[in-house]
Amino acid sequence: MSLIVTGTIGIDNVETPTGSAEGILGGSCAYFAAAASCYTSTRIVAAVGDDWPADHRSMLESFPGIDLAGLETRAGSKTFRWGGKYLENMNDRETLFTDLGVLEEAPPAIPDAFQDSEIVFLANTHPGVQRGFLKSLPNRKFTVADTMDLWINIARDDLVGLLGEIDGIVINDSEALLLTEHRNPFTAAKAIMEMGPKVVIIKKGEHGAVLVTPEGVAVIPAYPADETMVVDPTGCGDSFAGGFMGYIASRGSWEFSDLQAAMAWGTVSASFTLGAFALEGLQGLTMEGLEERMAKYQAAARVGDVNSIV
Amino acid sequence: MSLIVTGTIGIDNVETPTGSAEGILGGSCAYFAAAASCYTSTRIVAAVGDDWPADHRSMLESFPGIDLAGLETRAGSKTFRWGGKYLENMNDRETLFTDLGVLEEAPPAIPDAFQDSEIVFLANTHPGVQRGFLKSLPNRKFTVADTMDLWINIARDDLVGLLGEIDGIVINDSEALLLTEHRNPFTAAKAIMEMGPKVVIIKKGEHGAVLVTPEGVAVIPAYPADETMVVDPTGCGDSFAGGFMGYIASRGSWEFSDLQAAMAWGTVSASFTLGAFALEGLQGLTMEGLEERMAKYQAAARVGDVNSIV
Repeated sequence: MSLIVTGTIGIDNVETPTGSAEGILGGSCAYFAAAASCYTSTRIVAAVGDDWPADHRSMLESFPGIDLAGLETRAGSKTFRWGGKYLENMNDRETLFTDLGVLEEAPPAIPDAFQDSEIVFLANTHPGVQRGFLKSLPNRKFTVADTMDLWINIARDDLVGLLGEIDGIVINDSEALLLTEHRNPFTAAKAIMEMGPKVVIIKKGEHGAVLVTPEGVAVIPAYPADETMVVDPTGCGDSFAGGFMGYIASRGSWEFSDLQAAMAWGTVSASFTLGAFALEGLQGLTMEGLEERMAKYQAAARVGDVNSIV
Repeated sequence: MSLIVTGTIGIDNVETPTGSAEGILGGSCAYFAAAASCYTSTRIVAAVGDDWPADHRSMLESFPGIDLAGLETRAGSKTFRWGGKYLENMNDRETLFTDLGVLEEAPPAIPDAFQDSEIVFLANTHPGVQRGFLKSLPNRKFTVADTMDLWINIARDDLVGLLGEIDGIVINDSEALLLTEHRNPFTAAKAIMEMGPKVVIIKKGEHGAVLVTPEGVAVIPAYPADETMVVDPTGCGDSFAGGFMGYIASRGSWEFSDLQAAMAWGTVSASFTLGAFALEGLQGLTMEGLEERMAKYQAAARVGDVNSIV
């Protein structure tokens, strides 16, 4: 099924305890699409300014599965810029600066050729923009959104409205706590389900992720990564969502077992993002590369006796 | 194979955000043995004072798999007492008081009938006592120890000596950080392996556990538990170790696949401890009860496509 995403494309500065990079390609939409495009063709709807570097376009173009027909370059506008610094645990980060730029203008238009999109991902951006986007896609069959603490704090009404209109949400554990006042991820997920979405995924960074639906509960660890494998966590959540939604779109089905398998594919996709700055970890990645890492992940995350796996 | 454990038996006061209990049976040895005894007969070596309540003895006696021949009651001595308070996240706790009592005296003797023990668990107590215990068991074939931040801080030399004499260690993530200065659990585990033990298990509480050996790495999530299932985390780490070692002793084998399966059984055992104060969650538990919960755990923690589980 056709997969479409809207969200941010940014120019990032990132500092980690072991390295740093300036002026690199980032943004929720970029990481999502790069990860999803390994599984299925992925349509982008996003806007950048005329300061957007040519090598960032080349980087996105190097992913054959990304359809850039909905990427708008606006003359006189500035690309979204973000700077962040990771703390020593590599799980928490500080935002150093945010220049919204083109995100403060009207949202990008959806090309006519994208109107038939069925699987929709609303990557992190203002929930008002997310609501407008999904209303412009009358053929949508399965819509999932991401959000962040900023919108929970300053645009809660829009976010609550959005929750009533989507099928699923992907959210960090700290954001789920902020939204529901429940620290326990399973209890928080049930509280979010009561706000609308029937599929709730809570991401716990290095500790894995949790899925709660009316059909059941799933839990998975993160891909095992020692210090030498952790270069830059930026975009891991978006890449997780990209792998998740890319797999769902390629299956064309979102039964509980599909969602559970999609969580594992999302984890595997994110593990490639973790190992390099920007999209470099995902560049050139094929289904064979994903399957090879999935086999390692399954072997490491096997639960219980080999002969009694249910 | 025969399983033996030494450690503490205590009288605990516990406060959680949702309840409290005073004067209940606790201690590393009690929780370990109660969990392990579901899998195999478990020999206890421990000491209590003459203030030890009769109903605590009855509670331990209600576990048919626990061999109490090495439980010493000392006239004129006081039982170890511990009081703790859990913070709102149920993962962190403060120690309110510790009265060492009988733990400050000579360690309990190992009965002659226990001298042939092959599988040895050194539950949390002073590493000097742990070293003396394992040296008294010439037939030991697989020895695993637990420890805590206190001993890392005040008895590091004894602990480092112990690490050179054991096959495995079970340790919390915060303790692994304190011991190795590495936050990443895989990197910390490799640093601990260089200190001696070839089997390193790092417990992450509600986030599951990690196993590192020269043969490979395993990761598992905790058993999914919403707020209503979390009554008292006290003893969950000891019960995890009990399930782990009980399974290993019942198999009589500690290949990588055995250790990985044992991690899952430890997780299942700990999930019963979590749901009640003291040993009540484990009381009356049978292998059928464990297998039923294991099936639910495996279903929730399945990684990847159902048809491609490796």
